[in-house]
Amino acid sequence: MDIKAEIGRHTDEAEQIITSYLPEEKGYQKTVIEAMNYSFLAGGKRLRPILMLETYRLFGGKSKVIEPFMAAIEMIHTYSLVHDDLPAMDNDEYRRGKKTTHVVYGEAMAILAGDALLTYAFETAAKALDIEPQNPGIGKAIRILSAKAGIYGMVGGQTVDVESENTCDMTKEKLDFIYRLKTSALIEASMMIGAVLAGATGSEQKIVEAVASKVGLAFQIQDDILDVTSTMEVLGKPIGSDEKNHKSTYVTYEGIEKSKQDVADLSEKAIAQMETLVVKNEFLTELLRYLISREK
Amino acid sequence: MDIKAEIGRHTDEAEQIITSYLPEEKGYQKTVIEAMNYSFLAGGKRLRPILMLETYRLFGGKSKVIEPFMAAIEMIHTYSLVHDDLPAMDNDEYRRGKKTTHVVYGEAMAILAGDALLTYAFETAAKALDIEPQNPGIGKAIRILSAKAGIYGMVGGQTVDVESENTCDMTKEKLDFIYRLKTSALIEASMMIGAVLAGATGSEQKIVEAVASKVGLAFQIQDDILDVTSTMEVLGKPIGSDEKNHKSTYVTYEGIEKSKQDVADLSEKAIAQMETLVVKNEFLTELLRYLISREK
Repeated sequence: MDIKAEIGRHTDEAEQIITSYLPEEKGYQKTVIEAMNYSFLAGGKRLRPILMLETYRLFGGKSKVIEPFMAAIEMIHTYSLVHDDLPAMDNDEYRRGKKTTHVVYGEAMAILAGDALLTYAFETAAKALDIEPQNPGIGKAIRILSAKAGIYGMVGGQTVDVESENTCDMTKEKLDFIYRLKTSALIEASMMIGAVLAGATGSEQKIVEAVASKVGLAFQIQDDILDVTSTMEVLGKPIGSDEKNHKSTYVTYEGIEKSKQDVADLSEKAIAQMETLVVKNEFLTELLRYLISREK
Repeated sequence: MDIKAEIGRHTDEAEQIITSYLPEEKGYQKTVIEAMNYSFLAGGKRLRPILMLETYRLFGGKSKVIEPFMAAIEMIHTYSLVHDDLPAMDNDEYRRGKKTTHVVYGEAMAILAGDALLTYAFETAAKALDIEPQNPGIGKAIRILSAKAGIYGMVGGQTVDVESENTCDMTKEKLDFIYRLKTSALIEASMMIGAVLAGATGSEQKIVEAVASKVGLAFQIQDDILDVTSTMEVLGKPIGSDEKNHKSTYVTYEGIEKSKQDVADLSEKAIAQMETLVVKNEFLTELLRYLISREK
């Protein structure tokens, strides 16, 4: 399998699906919709929608009911980046080589565009009710989406991260907590929603959650590694920003070599755990494997 | 009916219900939860939860399924106030006589507390599935909640409001659009969710939406009037802030007397329209009537 080409094909597929759910840029509120779509269309690997769709397929899912949730999870991911980049937060001017939302639209509009993306994620997810009104997984999927994005998930991790920067009392234990919530939670939501909507059993959902948790952690550690070892050209954003911001990362605690080893170990464990499932999806396995060698 | 005493009793009832859904202040993410609860507990009339519960009762609703939605609508209302008060937005330091969230917790934490409240609103609403798993109205209620809070509802109105302040191109038509989205939309959501969860028919839901739209507009115009005619002691926030911020309001276009008359007309029309329903709720009617004479 030419995994890079396969990922490219799957990214295109996900891109086509999720962009079809973007709101039309019209009406008095046109500017905020433009800001939402600008942020959403700024690129990215669309990893979360791809993981969701492939987990759905893994469990035999075949309908379009997954599509609004693919768009919803990417909207939530996007809103979190828009708010993270704000002057009161990381104050980043570039992301993926493009100017951040508050630089283009101003701070007030960036706050509101983030709010709007978060709200529109739930509005979009609820459209699944039009596609399969009787699918009992839809209610559960909305619960997973909100819980994994909330205070016991992504935004909880983000707040501990922000607070630790100001108080300088980071520990390795707290860092693990932050990564588990800030990054793993949305990856968990992606894969669990795919499983739930395809009708996976409770024990299958638990395995998927555990796999996703490891993948998310590996993904975040890889991010820390790339911040040290990559270049702005490859990464599309300034490198060394963690050090510049005096930010403790996994690399600070473990060093580059141990961090690389941990990414490899986590990925292998995740793949081994996924292979305990009776169902198979070769691309999904290869995608998880690929994550350890990515360069951006 | 001693309407003030009745409202007090209903506010206490709503307060008890909605506060039981607040998250516990513990864990690494304790600060953001404290900030959420601080904002939520800063007072307020709890008008939206009361309207939701009374509309639910109007259509014969008797279960606790309404309760998580009562908490959810107040969380969304609260998040919108927290973000409105931010330095990049209205930059308000006091609300209801208390320091605003960003003054107490800092700007970054206030942004995140707003995000967390918005997300937790959906997490809370989804708890209705535990109470009545088979109620077909829950999915529809979540759709109403997200749509009325989103770009075609509250946050859409807020963005047009913010943008108009910067461009100074307000018109009466645009102001009506802002009020309809920014204020009426959540009142509509409150009353419609009450109707939907109690099993009201489609045409009954439409009547309720039209009533709520007028109530919301009357409520907002009354706010504009009080900003000119009240005192800081009564209102719990600085008066004259619209004029200070060079903000065009309903009063700017129509003057005080015509504004007062329009509030009275809208309220009477709303009540007359509600009386076309075969079901009755005397307190709800009196509450709508009271809104025209409120002083804060």
